[in-house]
Amino acid sequence: MARYQMGVDLGGTNTRVALVDEELKIRRRLQERTPKNDGQQIINTIIRLCKELLQQEGLSLEEISSLGVAAPGIVDNGRGIVVYANNLNWVNAPLRETITRELPLPFYLDNDANAAALAEALVGVNQGLQDSIVITLGTGVGGGVISQGKLLHGGYQAGGELGHMVIIAGGPLCTCGRRGCWETYSSAPALQRMARAAAQEDSSSGLWTACGNNLEQLTPKQVFLLAEQGDKAASSVIERYLALLATGIVNLVGIFKPEQIAIGGGIGGQGERITQPLQQAVNLESYGAKYLPNTKVVSTALGGDSGLIGAALLGKYYEGGITLG
Amino acid sequence: MARYQMGVDLGGTNTRVALVDEELKIRRRLQERTPKNDGQQIINTIIRLCKELLQQEGLSLEEISSLGVAAPGIVDNGRGIVVYANNLNWVNAPLRETITRELPLPFYLDNDANAAALAEALVGVNQGLQDSIVITLGTGVGGGVISQGKLLHGGYQAGGELGHMVIIAGGPLCTCGRRGCWETYSSAPALQRMARAAAQEDSSSGLWTACGNNLEQLTPKQVFLLAEQGDKAASSVIERYLALLATGIVNLVGIFKPEQIAIGGGIGGQGERITQPLQQAVNLESYGAKYLPNTKVVSTALGGDSGLIGAALLGKYYEGGITLG
Repeated sequence: MARYQMGVDLGGTNTRVALVDEELKIRRRLQERTPKNDGQQIINTIIRLCKELLQQEGLSLEEISSLGVAAPGIVDNGRGIVVYANNLNWVNAPLRETITRELPLPFYLDNDANAAALAEALVGVNQGLQDSIVITLGTGVGGGVISQGKLLHGGYQAGGELGHMVIIAGGPLCTCGRRGCWETYSSAPALQRMARAAAQEDSSSGLWTACGNNLEQLTPKQVFLLAEQGDKAASSVIERYLALLATGIVNLVGIFKPEQIAIGGGIGGQGERITQPLQQAVNLESYGAKYLPNTKVVSTALGGDSGLIGAALLGKYYEGGITLG
Repeated sequence: MARYQMGVDLGGTNTRVALVDEELKIRRRLQERTPKNDGQQIINTIIRLCKELLQQEGLSLEEISSLGVAAPGIVDNGRGIVVYANNLNWVNAPLRETITRELPLPFYLDNDANAAALAEALVGVNQGLQDSIVITLGTGVGGGVISQGKLLHGGYQAGGELGHMVIIAGGPLCTCGRRGCWETYSSAPALQRMARAAAQEDSSSGLWTACGNNLEQLTPKQVFLLAEQGDKAASSVIERYLALLATGIVNLVGIFKPEQIAIGGGIGGQGERITQPLQQAVNLESYGAKYLPNTKVVSTALGGDSGLIGAALLGKYYEGGITLG
């Protein structure tokens, strides 16, 4: 009877829900702005969007096999709670209890980056691989790891915080309180910060004209484009950006030696401008690179939908006892 | 019938073999210097020591359930080979084939750090834990990870290279070819290098007298002792050493969120002088520390025997399909 899986991608900006069919494709979706600083409102929005989705498709709950939620921060599927999500201002939010009261379905909860890694491993670019990683380069640096055929959750389901790996001890202060986290060098805001500093040093750089002399408006895309056009300041920013991005990537290769790493998020949209230099660094710097197949670096396949699809597939993964690859 | 497990700890300096009984304790052991730069001689030594051990105990092969070898570098249990071990000068050494020809036993092969992590998880300080890490601070920085009840091997059984995680991009050149690896700050030679530099800067430091004015002879133990006695140069060396050691440890907490990390190796012998400041850093800096139980930092229980015991227990782990914790 059950033919669909429902997924919720709960982001700091948008809440998105979708129905995924038996071919693991999105059948229908809805989205709304995530209410600010009001946990009950967020939960109400999730419930309402799910019900609307069922209604639009003329489906009853019996036709839905499970409901999965991908949330930012630290989650605990066992207890069905979001332990801590700083951009939702949530501590110990009882998602399973409150949502399943209105939508009595098998309910699964995971970190949004893990959901993205699961989706890429089940229906995306990492299909068929036992060891793969997805890295998203956006407001932060997020990561999800499939290790030995399983999602890496770590103890207390709180591992996988790849973006807060320090790559330059004593570097810039991170939102997490540490200094020199990978995220402080490889997120979109980090690239913008580096580009603004480079523009300040070089008044003749095209960086100024690209943003209409308002450096706060400078986008990562503009910096990549200028670098490609040979602008000196932009080129040196991109060179340093890619070198430090590669430092984190090669660290992960040493720790997990995945068959493939897929790069997504806004900056991931730069495609080969990113993946090609990262591949070079991996080939050159990985431990034992001469004696082993190299980890491949590619772009994600599912783009911004990976978290949403992954959320819907959580039930399949948890109930099926699936080993990937 | 089979009552014992045999283990081989193949080190760059010594080759050690042991029989482990049903209570998972070492019953008898033998050791010899590892022959230099001669793969066939190394294999012959292993075979001879194993046979001697059986003879001394008056045991036949039927009484041995399995033979496990812990080797440095990258190993491949599936193919039964050491893929690459730089300090043995080995590439694709066919251990299973050559050893089982003389000792027809179920044969298992793993990395020495993984064997140590397995031993601490089965019979040492990490017993009963699903997520634990062993870090050895010696000539290098070695690490073995138990993640979600399983040894972390990574793809191609080549992951777990924790010591080659870069913590200061552009730092000192590492033997692996990268710059600023954790190992270049947290190994025993790294501490000695930092202490020599500090002594050069401060001719009145006790570091000079401790080593009879021969800085090449300065030991980590002496530096720790002087720091405790208040020597200024030694104190600042130890402070920096511990801070960078903590950087790597907190990185691993973010990635794996283990319930416990056990510190071993020569410098690990400093006990609470090491574990107590590391615990402080973990409590303060771990991601989401306020909302989660803290990872504990302790000393290893099995000391230098962990690799040897772990080697002997490989069969139990692989054949038993054991999930730890």
